[in-house]
Amino acid sequence: MIVTVTPNPSLDRTLEVDRLVHGAVHRTAPVRLDAGGKGVNVARGLAANGVAVRAVFPAGGADGGELTRLLDEAGIDYRAVPIAQAVRTNVSVVEPDGTTTKLNTPGPQLSAHELEALLVAAVDADGDGWVACCGSLPDGAPGDLYADLVTRLHATGRLVAVDTSGPALTAALAAGPDLVKPNAEELAEAVGMPVVTLGDVVAAAEELRARGAGAVLTSLGPDGAVLVDAAGAIHGTAPARTVRSTVGAGDAMLAGFLAGGGRGEDALAGGLAWGAAAVALPGTRMPTPADLDRASVRLHDRIDALRVVHEGARA
Amino acid sequence: MIVTVTPNPSLDRTLEVDRLVHGAVHRTAPVRLDAGGKGVNVARGLAANGVAVRAVFPAGGADGGELTRLLDEAGIDYRAVPIAQAVRTNVSVVEPDGTTTKLNTPGPQLSAHELEALLVAAVDADGDGWVACCGSLPDGAPGDLYADLVTRLHATGRLVAVDTSGPALTAALAAGPDLVKPNAEELAEAVGMPVVTLGDVVAAAEELRARGAGAVLTSLGPDGAVLVDAAGAIHGTAPARTVRSTVGAGDAMLAGFLAGGGRGEDALAGGLAWGAAAVALPGTRMPTPADLDRASVRLHDRIDALRVVHEGARA
Repeated sequence: MIVTVTPNPSLDRTLEVDRLVHGAVHRTAPVRLDAGGKGVNVARGLAANGVAVRAVFPAGGADGGELTRLLDEAGIDYRAVPIAQAVRTNVSVVEPDGTTTKLNTPGPQLSAHELEALLVAAVDADGDGWVACCGSLPDGAPGDLYADLVTRLHATGRLVAVDTSGPALTAALAAGPDLVKPNAEELAEAVGMPVVTLGDVVAAAEELRARGAGAVLTSLGPDGAVLVDAAGAIHGTAPARTVRSTVGAGDAMLAGFLAGGGRGEDALAGGLAWGAAAVALPGTRMPTPADLDRASVRLHDRIDALRVVHEGARA
Repeated sequence: MIVTVTPNPSLDRTLEVDRLVHGAVHRTAPVRLDAGGKGVNVARGLAANGVAVRAVFPAGGADGGELTRLLDEAGIDYRAVPIAQAVRTNVSVVEPDGTTTKLNTPGPQLSAHELEALLVAAVDADGDGWVACCGSLPDGAPGDLYADLVTRLHATGRLVAVDTSGPALTAALAAGPDLVKPNAEELAEAVGMPVVTLGDVVAAAEELRARGAGAVLTSLGPDGAVLVDAAGAIHGTAPARTVRSTVGAGDAMLAGFLAGGGRGEDALAGGLAWGAAAVALPGTRMPTPADLDRASVRLHDRIDALRVVHEGARA
């Protein structure tokens, strides 16, 4: 069983309007609630494809109750660590052409006791496969929370993936996570250098490996992904049938990568297929087997180091 | 004790942003939750001024639980009738200059059984004073719900105020409510004629009286209010110290009017003072005694029938 850990989950509220007009009063369609946060999304993706998974996260307040209710409804296994403050809520105002205006509220502060309970729940969660530690850290959490978690999980023989950014990613590297999954922008920020070409992606990923990561899976939006590990670098692409929502596509890619074994070409191909399928679905909807098109995935024999990746990413 | 009935209450979420930018991602200040809906606002206003009040409303879902939690925190007496669907939630995105973009979600549908339970709770609520029936009706509720309620409450000897608009107001008139409280726009809609001058207000209010209302209190924003009852018509004004939020000011006026006895000049003066005070407070905050300035209220000896009211109101 795969375990996901989401220190800062969210309850996502999507409000559909014909057109968002500054200063006006709008009548929305019925609000859609989704369980959110990167690790929760990864768990939803795995569960939607019949992969055994358990989501571990803190939950407090009425919105925390809604979050667990949604997972109950979806039949997703979880361990919710009770906390005093309410989980954050993200409001997305969506228009028919897909334009999305997001309003993200600050998350809860977790006490030292609550943080420790979260780590214990993550380590104690049954499972023999990967543990994916995903997303931002709650306000006030120690910056090396993921490093601490990687160390504790490694002591139990688990493989650990970390999908985060900024100082939380930098700190996690020192503990030697088996996989990190930045996007181009997060990768550029981590190495402090622009990432414009596929060659830049490979060089920056090697830098993260030198700093402790076992493998680096960099998601590049329409340009696919690059996996850099001890065996070298592979670039793969998968066309999205249509682009409806890129939100959560990176989470779907990580879910597909882990479902595919978490290493090597098969995992990369899985991640690409899941990510491309997620882009064609609304909101953070995760693909099901019927949505996947493995035949469209291309793994390239060699990496075109000079190829500019979509929009690049400055450090 | 005064009783308020709110068939369609709401949980109001206020998100503060520096500037709302279409299509952008915003980090908001911590979300502020308020118990809302016209009758809930009236109850909050009365309670804030030490007037005994009980709020009756349906509540379902996690947001219904938040609504009652907020009333518990504020020490406001209520009877929440359990319903299957969740109460509506209104999102207000507020900028520092006061610009407010509102996103109102549809409310729940109440079953026939739930609607009956609401009416029974309203009639059974202890109380010997006014019953204020306030706001829109839930989707699918019979259009004559307020008329039904007025009839049942009159049978128990209660005085009934109705603050609603459109077909719900029109239907309520037939049951002879003791007071209705439209604003200029709602008054114009009810009579199907433009309401541009104070003379128009008086004529339209007399029309509503002819159709069943005992008294008509029309709120006119910065132009105060006009009370038309069996004794004739009075116009009164009260200057707002500053204008911070007009949302909920009409509810504060009704609360002040009922706190002042619910009839005649004293009640009108109270309503004007409460309404003007509410305008100077943020959001739907209700005034406390310290916020009230009764000395600034002016009741005018005669009505200047040709005076154009603020922005007028076309039918």
